[in-house]
Amino acid sequence: MRLATVRTSEGTRAVRLAGDTAVETGHADVGALLRDPGWRARAAVADGPAHPVAGLDYAPLVPAPEKIICVGMNYRDHIAEMGRQPPEYPTLFAKFPPTLVGAYDDVRLPTVSEAVDWEAELAVVIGAPARHCDEAAASAAIGGYTVLNDVSVRDYQNRTLQWLQGKMFEATTPLGPALVTPDELPGGGPGITAEISTEVDGEVMQRSDTGQLVFDPVTLVRYLSEIITLNPGDVIATGTPGGVGHARKPPRYLTDGAVLTTRIAGVGECRNTCRKEKPASPAR
Amino acid sequence: MRLATVRTSEGTRAVRLAGDTAVETGHADVGALLRDPGWRARAAVADGPAHPVAGLDYAPLVPAPEKIICVGMNYRDHIAEMGRQPPEYPTLFAKFPPTLVGAYDDVRLPTVSEAVDWEAELAVVIGAPARHCDEAAASAAIGGYTVLNDVSVRDYQNRTLQWLQGKMFEATTPLGPALVTPDELPGGGPGITAEISTEVDGEVMQRSDTGQLVFDPVTLVRYLSEIITLNPGDVIATGTPGGVGHARKPPRYLTDGAVLTTRIAGVGECRNTCRKEKPASPAR
Repeated sequence: MRLATVRTSEGTRAVRLAGDTAVETGHADVGALLRDPGWRARAAVADGPAHPVAGLDYAPLVPAPEKIICVGMNYRDHIAEMGRQPPEYPTLFAKFPPTLVGAYDDVRLPTVSEAVDWEAELAVVIGAPARHCDEAAASAAIGGYTVLNDVSVRDYQNRTLQWLQGKMFEATTPLGPALVTPDELPGGGPGITAEISTEVDGEVMQRSDTGQLVFDPVTLVRYLSEIITLNPGDVIATGTPGGVGHARKPPRYLTDGAVLTTRIAGVGECRNTCRKEKPASPAR
Repeated sequence: MRLATVRTSEGTRAVRLAGDTAVETGHADVGALLRDPGWRARAAVADGPAHPVAGLDYAPLVPAPEKIICVGMNYRDHIAEMGRQPPEYPTLFAKFPPTLVGAYDDVRLPTVSEAVDWEAELAVVIGAPARHCDEAAASAAIGGYTVLNDVSVRDYQNRTLQWLQGKMFEATTPLGPALVTPDELPGGGPGITAEISTEVDGEVMQRSDTGQLVFDPVTLVRYLSEIITLNPGDVIATGTPGGVGHARKPPRYLTDGAVLTTRIAGVGECRNTCRKEKPASPAR
């Protein structure tokens, strides 16, 4: 099953994608849908208003997750190319909901930085409350997968040891287009081995495979559930492979008008145009 | 003006504290109240159902902030005692809403750690949207101040370079009891120079003054507004002075039954009993 949040003239709506048609489920967005414990069955039989898939305007898949938890240093190939050892524990940091944009929305380049970089990531979306999980419970708590680009403002990220300020600029993080349930993926999920890539104006910048994850989705859910209750709609961004612009010699960054394409085979593709924010006069 | 979020048999309610009486404002909580652009005038004249202050059950002051942004390394005395130089930029990290508890609620000590520590902090609560602010606009965006204890799980915090995992355990972070508007404070605000302290079972562990902040509230709002729109109800935890348990020789941590008192003169006091979480059988 593939589910999305789309913008309509009446506001956002959760839809099930079925061939050329998107059928409304009766929920305002995929976050609201996932909070319904019977969401799988409810979405499967939904027969609300229908829309042609070709004309959909995708909102962020989950517009306002309670938690967006990001993982750093999580691709074996990237760690090896930097000459490091795989970490013992996942490196975790946060984003806030206003960072999110839809799968085809513009990505906003801030006025205060010229060092905005890409990070293609497989995102896990939680489908059931998860706390103190074993492996089976962690697997069952995964609602599905989607595509995220953790667009990062490197100069702010590196101003201090904590990365948050480079990760929280608003309207920088595509999330979508669709939630893909684990049964849709090769092997039936919940593990996922799929090519992941970033292109900028058609040039491949990152290309790896989600099988290179040090901490896979089930392991991450299990680990996080020691700390906190994961709730439906929570997003876990599982980290990015090598090939980011900041590590290139010379460094490469996103520029006004650049088209950023983030793709995970079998999961989906985000395609976002980067637009420099207009300088604002200071608010009074 | 002093505002709080209290639990009633009908759910949470925002109230204005006036002497011995708390008067409902008609909003579900202080977060909802602050999203009303006319909140100052509305709260000042509110005459909803009244409750005796003595019997109030305080919820987290803002139960679900869009953003909780925390500042590290922000007290001059603490930086000096560690032999470091004041930082050029604020160190920022995040918390999620489920970390919050009310001013007199229990603080939950997790089963997975014995290294839970205190961090008394002055919290700024945003009262109006703030983006690209100058100093005057930043000052005007501050709704008021409250007390927060950024209770931290040190072993998780130090597992990797990013602190988030030690800062996101649920039900660990007292926030309240009341929002105190800047005009209530000595000097009329928005700057604030007040004694801040932590006591554990009556023993003073931290005692400093918010005048020691490297980045004061107005500077923090201005800096953050370069990055993101601060919204009403957002919480900025401004950092903690010296005296944390982890830095003591030998280290001291919170234990089951300990009473944690966090106090800022003129702003308020949280008093929380620490309770060890019951070991859970793994969820299936």
